[in-house]
Amino acid sequence: MTCHFPPYPTQTARAILAIKLRRLRAEKNWSQEDLAAESGLDRSFVAHVEREARNIAIDNIEKLARGLGVQVYELL
Amino acid sequence: MTCHFPPYPTQTARAILAIKLRRLRAEKNWSQEDLAAESGLDRSFVAHVEREARNIAIDNIEKLARGLGVQVYELL
Repeated sequence: MTCHFPPYPTQTARAILAIKLRRLRAEKNWSQEDLAAESGLDRSFVAHVEREARNIAIDNIEKLARGLGVQVYELL
Repeated sequence: MTCHFPPYPTQTARAILAIKLRRLRAEKNWSQEDLAAESGLDRSFVAHVEREARNIAIDNIEKLARGLGVQVYELL
């Protein structure tokens, strides 16, 4: 991923994160369960983040980035 | 000898955030109290984040970004 500009700048950080997680999962053909396993998190946690229902902390954002093989700023 | 560059920064997300907060504050000549006031957070909270002592959540990262007038990804 080379574009670092958020797709919709007026969106909340939670919304941007949710969009990027779903997009990156789709590119890899990963289920939420796959992403959870790669990141060392629970599937229900990933599901909540993708529904913008979780005020996720930076350490867990970092786990998701490492699981996906991207930099943290690419998720935001 | 072959140099193997790590694919991703070895710094933690907390460390990157701390560096960027201090750098952006310095550019504006803002104290931690100034940043806290602009972001609607406590000075002690900002101090903890800049010492990497806080697992800050995404909503508060967003408050800091808005306070500084930058996008969230620019803090990470």
